[in-house]
Amino acid sequence: MALSTQPYKGARDFYPEDKRVQKYMFGKLREVAERFGYEEYDAPILEPLDIYLAKSGDEIVNEQTYVFEDRGGRKVVIRPEMTPTVSRMVAAKRQELAYPLRWYSLPNLWRYERPQRGRLREHWQLNVDIFGVADTAAETEIVTLIDDIFKNFGAERNMYDIKLNSRELINYLLQDYLQFTDEESHTISKLIDRMHKMERSVFIEKIDETLSSDHREAGATEKLLAILDAKAIKDLPKEAQKQTFTQDLQTMLEQLQKAGISNASFDITLMRGFDYYTGIVFEVFDTHPENNRSMLGGGRYDGLVGLFGVAPVPTVGFGWGDVTLQNFLELHRLLPDLKPETDVYVVLVGDVAAGAQAAIAELRAAGLNVAVDLSGKKIGDQFKNADKHGIEYALIVGESELASGQFKLKNLKTGDEQSGDIAVLSQTIKG
Amino acid sequence: MALSTQPYKGARDFYPEDKRVQKYMFGKLREVAERFGYEEYDAPILEPLDIYLAKSGDEIVNEQTYVFEDRGGRKVVIRPEMTPTVSRMVAAKRQELAYPLRWYSLPNLWRYERPQRGRLREHWQLNVDIFGVADTAAETEIVTLIDDIFKNFGAERNMYDIKLNSRELINYLLQDYLQFTDEESHTISKLIDRMHKMERSVFIEKIDETLSSDHREAGATEKLLAILDAKAIKDLPKEAQKQTFTQDLQTMLEQLQKAGISNASFDITLMRGFDYYTGIVFEVFDTHPENNRSMLGGGRYDGLVGLFGVAPVPTVGFGWGDVTLQNFLELHRLLPDLKPETDVYVVLVGDVAAGAQAAIAELRAAGLNVAVDLSGKKIGDQFKNADKHGIEYALIVGESELASGQFKLKNLKTGDEQSGDIAVLSQTIKG
Repeated sequence: MALSTQPYKGARDFYPEDKRVQKYMFGKLREVAERFGYEEYDAPILEPLDIYLAKSGDEIVNEQTYVFEDRGGRKVVIRPEMTPTVSRMVAAKRQELAYPLRWYSLPNLWRYERPQRGRLREHWQLNVDIFGVADTAAETEIVTLIDDIFKNFGAERNMYDIKLNSRELINYLLQDYLQFTDEESHTISKLIDRMHKMERSVFIEKIDETLSSDHREAGATEKLLAILDAKAIKDLPKEAQKQTFTQDLQTMLEQLQKAGISNASFDITLMRGFDYYTGIVFEVFDTHPENNRSMLGGGRYDGLVGLFGVAPVPTVGFGWGDVTLQNFLELHRLLPDLKPETDVYVVLVGDVAAGAQAAIAELRAAGLNVAVDLSGKKIGDQFKNADKHGIEYALIVGESELASGQFKLKNLKTGDEQSGDIAVLSQTIKG
Repeated sequence: MALSTQPYKGARDFYPEDKRVQKYMFGKLREVAERFGYEEYDAPILEPLDIYLAKSGDEIVNEQTYVFEDRGGRKVVIRPEMTPTVSRMVAAKRQELAYPLRWYSLPNLWRYERPQRGRLREHWQLNVDIFGVADTAAETEIVTLIDDIFKNFGAERNMYDIKLNSRELINYLLQDYLQFTDEESHTISKLIDRMHKMERSVFIEKIDETLSSDHREAGATEKLLAILDAKAIKDLPKEAQKQTFTQDLQTMLEQLQKAGISNASFDITLMRGFDYYTGIVFEVFDTHPENNRSMLGGGRYDGLVGLFGVAPVPTVGFGWGDVTLQNFLELHRLLPDLKPETDVYVVLVGDVAAGAQAAIAELRAAGLNVAVDLSGKKIGDQFKNADKHGIEYALIVGESELASGQFKLKNLKTGDEQSGDIAVLSQTIKG
C-alpha cells in the first residue's frame, strides 16, 4: 500500500512558496527585535516535563502537551511554549549575564488541540523578553517594540488594538476590595478570561454559583460587574486608583499615548491564560471584523527564573504566533508579492551541461542565483519550466554560444531579449 | 526543590553567542544553496512512523528514533532525517512541480544515541536535493555545490577529501562478479561499511563467516579483498570497468577534476548506511588528524518518491550536520570573530528613560540597533554592562544632553569619544 503524502494532522508542510512567506515574516520580526537591541537564542525542542508543571496553566500541561517517556525513562515534553525554557537558560547563567538582558527567539511549539483557524498543533512564535528591569520602562519598551513590528509590516494603527491590564490590580480588586477568597478569586479570574465567549446572563449565573451566599447577598456580583464595565482607570473604585500598580499602569498608558501609540488602552477584563504573570499584562487584537481576535500577548512574570534555584529576575515578555500574524497580514493585504530567490534559469541546447559549467560559474561569481535545466527536454519545455518556477530571466546556452562567448538572455515576464557576454548580461539581470 | 537548569541530555541550548555561530553557518549554507538555484522548504518535526519503516536503515527506526503514540493513538516520530519527508512532499505535488526541482532545508533532527563528539541527540542538518535528473549531471552539480560551500567558508581543498562510489557497481561486483547471494551481499556490504573501524584480520574472519563454504573454497574472500584494495577504477576487474554505471562514475570524476575539484576520488569501500541509495554515493572527510571522519554524505535515491504511490522521480541529495560542520570550522580556524547585532548601548544619566525616547527612536530610524540600559544603576556599572554585552559604542544621555541635543559617544574598544547631535553620531557608529 502506498504511504500517505499528508503531513501530520494540524501541522504544515512549507513548500518554497510557503517558506518564502515565513522567511519574509521572520526577517521583519528579527529586524525590529534587533533594532531594539535583542539578541537571538534557541534551545532544544524537547524539555523535561518538570519545568512545565510549576507555573503554566493546567490546561496546557494536562491536556495539550505532547508528553512521552524517552528510551531512558525520562518524561519529556515537546515544548508548548518558550517561557519556561528561556527562564531555565537565564537561571543557568544567572550570575554571568548582564542586565538588562534582551533576548528573542523564533521557536516552533506544539500543542495537542483540535486544529482550527489561527490555531494549529505546530506553530512558530516570536518570543521577546527583557530581564532585569523592575520598572514599567520594560513594559513600555516591549509594547513600543510590538507597535514597531506592526509598522515594519506596513500596518496602520486602526488595524489593531493594544489592551493592557494589571494582575496586581485584578488581585487587589478581587481579594482586597471585594474580599473574595483565594479560591473564589482564582475561579472568577478564569471566568473573566472567557467572559467574551459567553452570554452575559450565563456569565452572571456562573459568578453567582462561584461566590459564597454571604458574598452574593452582600451584592458582590453587582459590584464585580460594575468593575468589569469600567472603560478606563478613572471608572474604577477610588481605593483601587490610589494603588501604586494602578498609577504605574496609568503612567505607562500616558507614555504610550505620548509616543503616538494611540491604540493602546486599559481593559480590566484582560486576564491572560498563564498562571505565571505577576504584573502588567497585555494583548493585541486584530480590529478586522472577520478576525476580531487576540493575536499576541504577554506581560510581566517576575517569578519564573527563581524557580530554578537562583535569585528571581524581573521579566517582561511576549509571544506572537506565526499563524495569527500571517492571518492578520493576509486579511489586511500587507503581504507583498514574494519572488523566488533564483535570478536566472539556464536553458541548455544540446548536450552542453559539462561545457556550460564555466559560463554558469561566471554568473554565480557575479553574485547571481542560477538554476540550470538538466532535464534534457526540448527548449520550449525548458522555458515552461523556468516560468513554472517563477524565475524572471532565462539564458540560452548551446554549442555556438559557448564557442562565441555571446549569449541570449530573455526576460520571461516582458518577452524582451538581449545578446551579449556573461558580464553584460549579469548587469541586466541584476537590474 | 529547585528545577534543573540543564537542557535535555544530548541537546544544546543556544545562548546568543552560540546562536550567532549557527546563524553565520546557516547564512553561508543558504547563500551557496541559493546560488545554485535551490529553494528552501520545511516540514513538521513530527511525521507518521510509516514513512521511516519503508526504506531507512533498520538501526535508525528500531533503536534510534524518538517514537511515541499521540493522544489520538497515532504512532509518530520526531524526524531522525529529512529524506523521507522531502520525498513525501514531492510525491504530494508530483504532477504540479517543475523538474529539475531544486530544494534545500535546514531542519533539526533527533536520534536517541549516546552523545559523543560530533554526534548529539539533536542536530541541524543542511539537506539539499535535486529531483528529476537521471543523468550524472545531477551528482556533478551536487558535489560542485558542496565544494562551493567549503570555499564559501574559506576552506582549502587540502582540508577535506571527497570520496565517491556507486551502489550499482558494488551490487554488480558482489552479486554478478563474485556471485554472492542477496543475503551474503547485504551482510557483506554492511561489513564493508564498518571495515575501517575494525582490524583487517577481524574483517576477514567476518567475511569468511558470512560466505558459504563453496564461495570460501573458490577464493571469494581473496577476490573481494583485492577489489576492496582498488585505489582507482582502473584497478577493478575489467568486466566491472566496462559497465555503464562505472563509466558514468569515471566521467563524473574526470569532470570534477576538470572543474578543479582535485580532492575528489574513487573509494570502493564507501557504502553509506541508508538502504535507499540506488546509484552514485559520496562522502566528504575531514583531513585534519584530530578529526579524520566523515562530515557529510549523500547520493542518488531514485526509489523513495515512488513509495508514496506516484511515478518515481530520480533524485540526488545530501545531508550535512551542523555539529560536524562546526567541528570542522573550529579545528581549521575558519570561524570569524562574530560580534553582537547591537550597534550602540544607551547609558541613561538620571531618570530620563521616558524623555530619551525621541533620541533613541532617531537612532533606530537611522538603521542602528540600539539597546537602552534601564537598570537605573550607576554610570560606571552601565558601561560595564555595555562591555559585557560586547557592544562597541555607548551613548550617554542625561537631562543636559536632552536639553541641548548634543550627546557624547564613546567607543568602548578604543576609548575614543566624540560629541555631536544624533545624526552626526549615527554616522560614526555606522563607520
